[in-house]
Amino acid sequence: MAIVEVAIIPMGTGSTSVSKYVADCHKILEEQKDIKSMLTPMGSVLEGDLDLIFQEIRKMHEVPFASGAMRVSTTIRIDDRRDKDTSMEQKLKSVRKKM
Amino acid sequence: MAIVEVAIIPMGTGSTSVSKYVADCHKILEEQKDIKSMLTPMGSVLEGDLDLIFQEIRKMHEVPFASGAMRVSTTIRIDDRRDKDTSMEQKLKSVRKKM
Amino acid sequence: MAIVEVAIIPMGTGSTSVSKYVADCHKILEEQKDIKSMLTPMGSVLEGDLDLIFQEIRKMHEVPFASGAMRVSTTIRIDDRRDKDTSMEQKLKSVRKKM
Amino acid sequence: MAIVEVAIIPMGTGSTSVSKYVADCHKILEEQKDIKSMLTPMGSVLEGDLDLIFQEIRKMHEVPFASGAMRVSTTIRIDDRRDKDTSMEQKLKSVRKKM
Repeated sequence: MAIVEVAIIPMGTGSTSVSKYVADCHKILEEQKDIKSMLTPMGSVLEGDLDLIFQEIRKMHEVPFASGAMRVSTTIRIDDRRDKDTSMEQKLKSVRKKM
Repeated sequence: MAIVEVAIIPMGTGSTSVSKYVADCHKILEEQKDIKSMLTPMGSVLEGDLDLIFQEIRKMHEVPFASGAMRVSTTIRIDDRRDKDTSMEQKLKSVRKKM
Repeated sequence: MAIVEVAIIPMGTGSTSVSKYVADCHKILEEQKDIKSMLTPMGSVLEGDLDLIFQEIRKMHEVPFASGAMRVSTTIRIDDRRDKDTSMEQKLKSVRKKM
Repeated sequence: MAIVEVAIIPMGTGSTSVSKYVADCHKILEEQKDIKSMLTPMGSVLEGDLDLIFQEIRKMHEVPFASGAMRVSTTIRIDDRRDKDTSMEQKLKSVRKKM
């Protein structure tokens, strides 16, 4: 199970607002039951099988193009840990316990 | 007011765990009352004056070195919008309203 | 054709050096003739079909695990422009012309 | 000496082209003799004192606003290694030697 953050920015749309694109991207995630997702002020965090996550991000990246954008900047950060089971919830707990 | 995400990774520590470093970084943020912060599974999101945020990130970046790390990889993403007031909370609301 | 930057960081290896992993990742790229690649001091930049690039990045992400790392942090930035043909070379030229 | 990559994206400008902004950002870097810089297809890589680099990035981040953009997305990746002297050139050499 990997934890992956994705942020998708349409370029050249003439509007500073991107919330519509983010909402449409997040709808794709909600249809995919095998991936957990969390919305943050800077993107979406996904938890699940890495190959499946890559597939979903590939779809999300198309969202702004489908709405007319001609250039898209997508940033992805993968945290893939294989020495023990991890999860978004577990990572947050682990930090909070030490604060 | 800018919204900024920061993720700090110590390298070569011999341990896959980084929660102690993240917790120490977040303690720095909690001492700074003029910056709001939110912990996510992939980093910390900060909201406030950009110059002040740069100062705090500069301190956070030193945390793993102070604990013995010899190499640190820090990733920062700034979202700076000046056509209207924004906030972490407002960004989340704006997306959720469209979902 | 998309242009994509990827940086792969093994975590918890006990060594601050990562050049061996980067070299192994870059060897994967050199075997794939349909993707152009460029090494920078902060990662690798790839140019080609986005689906093919995703496949190659997926392989590159496994390299540190195959060498014993138990946690890997991978950062990907995609620049996908569809209103005109672009390339790594073209992007560099376009900036230099304006300097 | 740290090595830092920065990529600055203006949002909502109505144009998919960003080379003018990148060129203006890079001009700022060329005036600063204590920082070495390298243009890549995905951003600028800087080498020098980290505090000085933060100062320059802070200036670069203002460039699109000065040209009329109302929202700017800036991504920064810091590689800070303190167990030995490093440089952009040294990092490239070290990888190439192992390929």
